[in-house]
Amino acid sequence: MSAQDRTGALPLTLLAEQFAKLPGIGMKTAQRLAYFVMSMPESEAKEFADAIIRAKKTVHACRICQNLTDKEICPICSDEKRDRSVICTVESPKDVSAFERTREYNGVYHVLHGLISPIDGITPDKLRITELLKRIQDGGVSEVIMATNPTPEGEATAMYISRLIKPLGIKVTRLAFGLPIGAILEYADEVTLYKALENRNEI
Amino acid sequence: MSAQDRTGALPLTLLAEQFAKLPGIGMKTAQRLAYFVMSMPESEAKEFADAIIRAKKTVHACRICQNLTDKEICPICSDEKRDRSVICTVESPKDVSAFERTREYNGVYHVLHGLISPIDGITPDKLRITELLKRIQDGGVSEVIMATNPTPEGEATAMYISRLIKPLGIKVTRLAFGLPIGAILEYADEVTLYKALENRNEI
Repeated sequence: MSAQDRTGALPLTLLAEQFAKLPGIGMKTAQRLAYFVMSMPESEAKEFADAIIRAKKTVHACRICQNLTDKEICPICSDEKRDRSVICTVESPKDVSAFERTREYNGVYHVLHGLISPIDGITPDKLRITELLKRIQDGGVSEVIMATNPTPEGEATAMYISRLIKPLGIKVTRLAFGLPIGAILEYADEVTLYKALENRNEI
Repeated sequence: MSAQDRTGALPLTLLAEQFAKLPGIGMKTAQRLAYFVMSMPESEAKEFADAIIRAKKTVHACRICQNLTDKEICPICSDEKRDRSVICTVESPKDVSAFERTREYNGVYHVLHGLISPIDGITPDKLRITELLKRIQDGGVSEVIMATNPTPEGEATAMYISRLIKPLGIKVTRLAFGLPIGAILEYADEVTLYKALENRNEI
């Protein structure tokens, strides 16, 4: 960035560096984005900055399912029409959005906020597994669907949690492998996801 | 975004919509970026928001060359060691960064902030051409290098400006076509750019 510094607009360089921290955004794209922000009306740039602050301040984990929400309990957990006896357990909030887009699932969710991956230092205690076990112990749960990605980490996490839950007499199912192995769940199309949900098998 | 709304975190949706306004960022990438911001420490998110506000507030066009800067006159224009008799005229601040990266150009710049494109409503009066003519009338300029992209708009702009400047007895040159036609200047590698600069021809 020294050449960029020489052209003089340090605050612009700092903004580009902020964009470059985002996943999938390299330094050249980050510079383009920073220049784009410069071309926005000041009110729009302020809106952008405010949206970051507001999201960060008001959004947190739902007390029940751990999905991100700006309420104490998220709209899905507080929806009387949802079937609370079925819990679909996913890696991240993005996966909840993906299942909601199928418009076919009527149960509730549990967001783990990660997958077991000892190589990255993510041990089971770093995930929201205790919260899931507590929900089961509170009663009323008949089935837990393990809807983690069909990757080694996703499989390991599904197996780990199923071994904890099955002794409690709860049915544990896994998404059907309509999904190609190695795929990323959030990019699956609605029909594939729905099929995977429909053909789920007990493990 | 209605499915996303149903999962409950409206401020997160609003943040994703802000990211989606940026060039080259679709709704799915925007959602990923918004979720990434959620995973940042609050201090880092605040830094990001502040960088937007600060860049927008403090960065403006240099009084002389129109490049973006946070000073009244940019570091290049105020650098005593630069040759003020040669003005390299470019479309945008990104192009100044590109030339500075060659570390071979020692003249000064003029940033047009666009190219003539009647189909997009960009007529010559929308560009900083008056400011360029004023610099020439103020004296001391011996050469103007037209360094716009080798695209129809870039060519048209170079021709338009050269016709205004040549009657004033100023040498007007064009970048050598070492650049492949249709290329985008800011993505050119340093050597190609330097060759294009070195082999410039009078027009």
